[in-house]
Amino acid sequence: MSELKNDLLLRALRGEEVNRPPVWMMRQAGRYLPDYIKLREKYDFFTRVETPELACEITLQPVDQVGVDAAILFSDILVIPQALGLQVLLEEGKGPILPRTVQTAADVDALTVDGAAERLHYVTDALKLTKKELNGRVPLIGFAGAPWTLLCYMVEGKGSKTFDKAKQFCFTQPELAHKMLQKITDATISYLKAQVAAGADLVQVFDSWSGMLSPADFKIFAQPYLLQIADALSGDAPVILFPKGSWYALPELSKSSAAGLGIDWSLTPELARQMSGGKITLQGNFDPSKLLAPIPQIQREVREMIDAFGTQYYIANLGHGILPNIPVDHAKAFVEAVKSYNS
Amino acid sequence: MSELKNDLLLRALRGEEVNRPPVWMMRQAGRYLPDYIKLREKYDFFTRVETPELACEITLQPVDQVGVDAAILFSDILVIPQALGLQVLLEEGKGPILPRTVQTAADVDALTVDGAAERLHYVTDALKLTKKELNGRVPLIGFAGAPWTLLCYMVEGKGSKTFDKAKQFCFTQPELAHKMLQKITDATISYLKAQVAAGADLVQVFDSWSGMLSPADFKIFAQPYLLQIADALSGDAPVILFPKGSWYALPELSKSSAAGLGIDWSLTPELARQMSGGKITLQGNFDPSKLLAPIPQIQREVREMIDAFGTQYYIANLGHGILPNIPVDHAKAFVEAVKSYNS
Repeated sequence: MSELKNDLLLRALRGEEVNRPPVWMMRQAGRYLPDYIKLREKYDFFTRVETPELACEITLQPVDQVGVDAAILFSDILVIPQALGLQVLLEEGKGPILPRTVQTAADVDALTVDGAAERLHYVTDALKLTKKELNGRVPLIGFAGAPWTLLCYMVEGKGSKTFDKAKQFCFTQPELAHKMLQKITDATISYLKAQVAAGADLVQVFDSWSGMLSPADFKIFAQPYLLQIADALSGDAPVILFPKGSWYALPELSKSSAAGLGIDWSLTPELARQMSGGKITLQGNFDPSKLLAPIPQIQREVREMIDAFGTQYYIANLGHGILPNIPVDHAKAFVEAVKSYNS
Repeated sequence: MSELKNDLLLRALRGEEVNRPPVWMMRQAGRYLPDYIKLREKYDFFTRVETPELACEITLQPVDQVGVDAAILFSDILVIPQALGLQVLLEEGKGPILPRTVQTAADVDALTVDGAAERLHYVTDALKLTKKELNGRVPLIGFAGAPWTLLCYMVEGKGSKTFDKAKQFCFTQPELAHKMLQKITDATISYLKAQVAAGADLVQVFDSWSGMLSPADFKIFAQPYLLQIADALSGDAPVILFPKGSWYALPELSKSSAAGLGIDWSLTPELARQMSGGKITLQGNFDPSKLLAPIPQIQREVREMIDAFGTQYYIANLGHGILPNIPVDHAKAFVEAVKSYNS
């Protein structure tokens, strides 16, 4: 790691002193960037994900063009369901569709953990290539979807406002649900370890739908698997857990082996610090829609956010992925406002 | 009010002693009830809303068939945008579409507050008829959408996962947004007063999308208008505010003139009591998807919920609207579990 020219993100995760917080943006690779949109017109989604040269090129774009302090691999959380044996279709601009969903014990048994990480060799190939191309400029982030969020898609078969089919599966067949969550967890741990071995300097676990669960159900169906992943990876690389909407879990997760916790914008920085005990690095939590505000307002609110979080044990980020309709100069203004803090 | 045979809900809202909590379910009228589905096949959505006899019949169904302690008028929050001059289309099973949205100062000027409440005479007619048909069996609840939530639809033109266009409107034209929110508020206050005059024993204000706002933006774009409505109505009837997802606002809203606060299932009852100071009636917060669980589990978790909230200053309810795919016997089991608590 010492070869990194900019190791702010890793320093922040280790709680080492930094002169300003590091900044990156969830989903920074893709979506809103004109050079990405050009590639999108030539290659379909999974071609972009599965071709290391394309994934690498897309991953580097925000580093070169927006000036973030980290690269996060261009990929998708649904590669794990694919590697476990499910088909995933993605129509541009629409959500994913899984034509065959998981409903029965036979469906869970059919999920193939053995070799799942190896089947995602295109991800590790892309990480190796990106690591080389980055040449130590900034750290490289690997990632995976959290088991609960992946179960949501694998049972529901598509996005949902309520994921009530996924919940029904868990509430009516809890043993089967846990068996499935464990299989996803096992595959995810191997996958993330392979990402670290291929060059990822840290990994983030996205539990995009954990906030659909009550605090009690989060402890049953989400938290144990997040903790397993954090425990299994913490010897390999720093882990950031991002259970979106699950602000209520901050006190428990702050005692985990995760190095950082992502938070969304439903929480004030002050309360997030209070709930997490002040001793774990927090990441977030600018409302992604606020990047549509005028630039002076973005600059002012970024300063207020850093004032509130403090500059230490902190990673500036959005509270969820950047939206496709964000003007690039607004994204740059966000990043620049963090970089010029204190200067 | 003294003529009510079952005034549990009103007693709970006044903080008077009750031998068990009252129970009703958001969106209890419609959706999952077979007799409603039969009516849906004969009459389109706005015919059902605008025909007092149909709205009355649908409103009474859950009282007769599920045994809830209150009736809530079958209607829609988007009648206010209609009364202000916007067209609202609703295709069965899909979200609403507003073909002409609000974008400019001229659009806001064109919203006609004068006479808006009067144009919704079919709602007051339905309330009068329902009040008569109820014959004092249970209280009758009137309702409206909160100004922020209505602005979301009026600017965005449809449902959205992020309501970023609505937010962009507010962030880039805040003065215009406040002018619009005030117009919606003024119309809503007249509308809710007319509902009380027509027989509503209490009113609930649904801020379905307030949780999309950060705590700071909630204070700017949602809270002031919720407080205005609560203040204006509190002399007429008890007001329940339900800002879904805005758990962070509980400390402030508990000091308002609202008689009750609705909460969703992202919050434990214990924390909700703590944040709201213990002196205001709370309503909620069963995960609507949990009605898909086996009946014994519903019964057990309802008892645990009441244990945690306590039986006083409490209204048992779901944490959001009942889902269309809930079996009627599961809805009944929820209601019965509350009614048999302590017995």
